Amino acid sequence: MRALVIGGDGYCGWATALYLSNKGYEVGILDSLVRRYWDAQLGAETLTPIAPIRQRLDRWYELTGKKIDLFIGDINDYPFLTNALRQFQPDAVVHFGEQRSAPFSMIDREHAVLTQANNVLGNLNLLYALKEDFPDCHLVKLGTMGEYGTPNIDIEEGYITIEHKGRKDTLPYPKQPGSFYHLSKVHDSHNIHFACKIWGLRATDLNQGIVYGVLTEETGMDEMLINRLDYDGVFGTALNRFCIQAAIGHPLTVYGKGGQTRGLLDIRDTVRCIELAIANPADKGQFRVFNQYTELFSVGDLAQMVQKAGADLGLKVEIDHLENPRVELEEHYFNAVNTNLLDLGLQPHFLSDSLLDSLLNFATKYKDRVDQKHILPKVTWRG
Amino acid sequence: MRALVIGGDGYCGWATALYLSNKGYEVGILDSLVRRYWDAQLGAETLTPIAPIRQRLDRWYELTGKKIDLFIGDINDYPFLTNALRQFQPDAVVHFGEQRSAPFSMIDREHAVLTQANNVLGNLNLLYALKEDFPDCHLVKLGTMGEYGTPNIDIEEGYITIEHKGRKDTLPYPKQPGSFYHLSKVHDSHNIHFACKIWGLRATDLNQGIVYGVLTEETGMDEMLINRLDYDGVFGTALNRFCIQAAIGHPLTVYGKGGQTRGLLDIRDTVRCIELAIANPADKGQFRVFNQYTELFSVGDLAQMVQKAGADLGLKVEIDHLENPRVELEEHYFNAVNTNLLDLGLQPHFLSDSLLDSLLNFATKYKDRVDQKHILPKVTWRG
Repeated sequence: MRALVIGGDGYCGWATALYLSNKGYEVGILDSLVRRYWDAQLGAETLTPIAPIRQRLDRWYELTGKKIDLFIGDINDYPFLTNALRQFQPDAVVHFGEQRSAPFSMIDREHAVLTQANNVLGNLNLLYALKEDFPDCHLVKLGTMGEYGTPNIDIEEGYITIEHKGRKDTLPYPKQPGSFYHLSKVHDSHNIHFACKIWGLRATDLNQGIVYGVLTEETGMDEMLINRLDYDGVFGTALNRFCIQAAIGHPLTVYGKGGQTRGLLDIRDTVRCIELAIANPADKGQFRVFNQYTELFSVGDLAQMVQKAGADLGLKVEIDHLENPRVELEEHYFNAVNTNLLDLGLQPHFLSDSLLDSLLNFATKYKDRVDQKHILPKVTWRG
Repeated sequence: MRALVIGGDGYCGWATALYLSNKGYEVGILDSLVRRYWDAQLGAETLTPIAPIRQRLDRWYELTGKKIDLFIGDINDYPFLTNALRQFQPDAVVHFGEQRSAPFSMIDREHAVLTQANNVLGNLNLLYALKEDFPDCHLVKLGTMGEYGTPNIDIEEGYITIEHKGRKDTLPYPKQPGSFYHLSKVHDSHNIHFACKIWGLRATDLNQGIVYGVLTEETGMDEMLINRLDYDGVFGTALNRFCIQAAIGHPLTVYGKGGQTRGLLDIRDTVRCIELAIANPADKGQFRVFNQYTELFSVGDLAQMVQKAGADLGLKVEIDHLENPRVELEEHYFNAVNTNLLDLGLQPHFLSDSLLDSLLNFATKYKDRVDQKHILPKVTWRG
């Protein structure tokens, strides 16, 4: 099976491309490399020194004999997109190619517009390209658990059956996204749902939780294959950031009370979830939604776990409660269904002390690369 | 009170601008005039000969002594937008300035992208402009009843209280829009809701039904003030189109079985609803939704009503059931709440034979301007 990974130079995309290649899929990576450009603009760097994409792919070929095709360009450039698809002939397209940071989208108007234009219009291009040339191709699109917000009822997987005034229907689950980035993903979900309905496309929307960890079997094979690990206030995410903060002796930056509960998963589960989705494609015309996380934690709980794991390694870890730069509920109900991927065979890696040890040790190894001025949040939701 | 009507050169916008001016509001019109350009590109013209915007406004001033400010430019041009707002100093912004045709958005990829970029990003600019300079200004945004689609349960006004697994919450009403245009309005709703939440903006989303009629007290004052009336397959809407078809002896073009039920309202009610909304602003931080229609009809019912009214005027009116170019349910449940505007004092003009007579006579007066090749639908949803 031929799988094209859009955004295959990124954190989840890179790990996924190598994993699928290792599993015997014919893999292509399509990426504009704009994320590397944004890093340069922000003056931020991944904790880990990531090699240029061509060097990474050459090394992968040397090590495994497996070739990964490369298409460098922007899906907002429609002729480029259609040419790349025609050349690669995908059976599945895995779409990680969106601006993925909530704080980035909240920097200012320009970044909000950039995020929604890039994500929504790029995805719209992809829908048209599939409709025109690859109507049977399975679109596996990364959404986010953040689309749901924090409703006071259980979160289902994409749809909810509602009884109202004596009648009943199953409707798209109501969304309450919390940033212009999360909103872009909600807009995408609606557009994809419609495209499946009118054109008979097949799509799986993976509403992913916060991914942690850095090593997969493949990215750990060689220094040249190392994955990115973001710790800055814009692109870094909760648990990864905490481990890096602990490694350099910086207090853990918990926003507000830390009662925000979120779904999380190990990056080794991300890559497996993608494989499960493409190995079990959606039906024609079906817009399928999977909630892609394995465990629920509050941000405060995560900080305490890192504190404890750090102490076991001899690190003195403090926890700081910063004024929350976001507008969000800090104490709320949160319970989400995540059985679709488990039913397909996902066997989760649960967060344990040993994983935290490994991530803390990894962070410690590269800690001299940390630029402390990027650790504190600079972007506020209230502007 | 100072009200800026974005899209004030259009069908609803023009009628609204004159109505508010007549009622004593200080009115400004902001319009890019791009709709006139699209008409030229499509080779389509309004049934009625509409004058250039400056001539219209000069005539209005001659007749009433009331001045309407004019800002010609695109809200996607942020410096233009902020300059216009700073110059006008609005207390309320009425936002009619979006691409409003479902078929236009479904012509091809370029038109889908244009529609979502123009509508969503333009509206995002407006949210930022209000946040920056006019955080207390009331945004009155035109949505559409088409955002809801045709759920099998009653449609509430923007929100629905759901009991689920023993818990309860009031959440945004789930949307099932039926074109890339309708999707753009759903995206807008989510963006506005979020902006109210994080920045404390105040907004009213008017989910409007299909508007019919052409004469308001103000547009009927003088030939130079005449409103546009679209009859073509792209921008024309159901009842207006049927009356024009009847006037020229063309069979009424019912799509499919004609069982599609929709909310409708008279254009005289549109302008009154806008006034009610701005006279009773939303609270700070509130995202309020009103369903703006007065009656429910099926498309087939509308055709029969026009047939009967035409017969009374001596017209022989036939009804054609065309293959439906859209992907939509043609037989479905449809019941929507619309009490918010009634509670504020709306006294609807109900659709009656006399209104149809008046609209048919109006259409007959201008029937020599009809270009028959624009009547049949050319855009299909399946592409």
